[in-house]
Amino acid sequence: MDEIIKATEAYVRQYMSHNDSSHDFSHITRVLRLAQNIAARETCLRPVSSRPYDTNIIALAALLHDVGDRKYIKSTDGDPATLVLNFLLSINAPPDLAHTVQEICTHVSYSSEIADPEKVRRMIEEIPELAVVQDADRLDALGAVGIGRCFHFAAVKEVKEGGKGMEDAVRHFGKKLVRLEGWMKTETGREMARIRTERLREYVGWWKEEVAGPLGRSN
Amino acid sequence: MDEIIKATEAYVRQYMSHNDSSHDFSHITRVLRLAQNIAARETCLRPVSSRPYDTNIIALAALLHDVGDRKYIKSTDGDPATLVLNFLLSINAPPDLAHTVQEICTHVSYSSEIADPEKVRRMIEEIPELAVVQDADRLDALGAVGIGRCFHFAAVKEVKEGGKGMEDAVRHFGKKLVRLEGWMKTETGREMARIRTERLREYVGWWKEEVAGPLGRSN
Repeated sequence: MDEIIKATEAYVRQYMSHNDSSHDFSHITRVLRLAQNIAARETCLRPVSSRPYDTNIIALAALLHDVGDRKYIKSTDGDPATLVLNFLLSINAPPDLAHTVQEICTHVSYSSEIADPEKVRRMIEEIPELAVVQDADRLDALGAVGIGRCFHFAAVKEVKEGGKGMEDAVRHFGKKLVRLEGWMKTETGREMARIRTERLREYVGWWKEEVAGPLGRSN
Repeated sequence: MDEIIKATEAYVRQYMSHNDSSHDFSHITRVLRLAQNIAARETCLRPVSSRPYDTNIIALAALLHDVGDRKYIKSTDGDPATLVLNFLLSINAPPDLAHTVQEICTHVSYSSEIADPEKVRRMIEEIPELAVVQDADRLDALGAVGIGRCFHFAAVKEVKEGGKGMEDAVRHFGKKLVRLEGWMKTETGREMARIRTERLREYVGWWKEEVAGPLGRSN
């Protein structure tokens, strides 16, 4: 299994190398570490009767979760719905594992959950590792790192498509990012999201004060 | 004078319209408001013997301070050293005023001050409005707005020149931005810079914790 994880890491590092830094390999390594930490803590919190997390599934899904992401997909990449599956089969991963990891990657995103929350809920009953990777990915959109990623992504979009990157980013904090906390699945994820969402709110408070306040400080 | 300020505002709005949002017309309006607020408060704090600030000089210099900025200059813009002067003369501003505003714009930047701090010190004795506009411009590089502008600028640079935008931005907070507080010239600017630099440090603390901490929170 070590060989499979090593080959996956090399593949993902290469796959992400053309992305801007809001969705690069550093994002992947942060999500991997977050997912592993969440799983470790949840293992202590969950009922002893729960099926233990499969740490290989968590590692592979965290590494591969942005492979096929429609924001960055290139026409030469092939079908985004089977990119992860085909890669894992190509390195001789067990087909069951490959299918499970593909399912997690397909259902990890907020937009896919918004489109069909019930489906994601059912999927998590079947594959509890999805909850862990999903929470980890969402945590990386919150807090100081989330603020930086959002500004970065909006700036890249401004360069390529026009618009007002900075204002779009700050709007996005209030419109989408502060809601993520309510969609966390694990106890650990929820706790960490609370801290990171507070940071987001504090940051937006500073922003509003600086942009509007007569002396840019509390009155 | 209202006509001159109105014409200047229209010119600057057009001039900045091709810049990315880290250095757009919103930056100019924030600096203008900051400069006017600093001047109002400094007027109460400075010795009564001081020459009063010329509010027209402050308004014009705040509006024009990025005209000729070498980061965004185009080859068709003409000589950056006289762009402000020539524009003001072209709208029939008094030559003395036009020269003073050009001097402020030439000496407003941190890099120009670092290159010859003594010259800027002497210039401020002669033109105290330089201190006000300089402080206002530097305040907009600090706090939540400064964080957003720095991420945005670094992302644009990443798209155009490569590199690692987000990491470069966070490095820039610690390397340059936290030093600005020590270069503030007015009492009011220093007080506001202290608050905004604290925000910057708090943000960097969150970032480090999220990137390195085992659970992305205080241990």
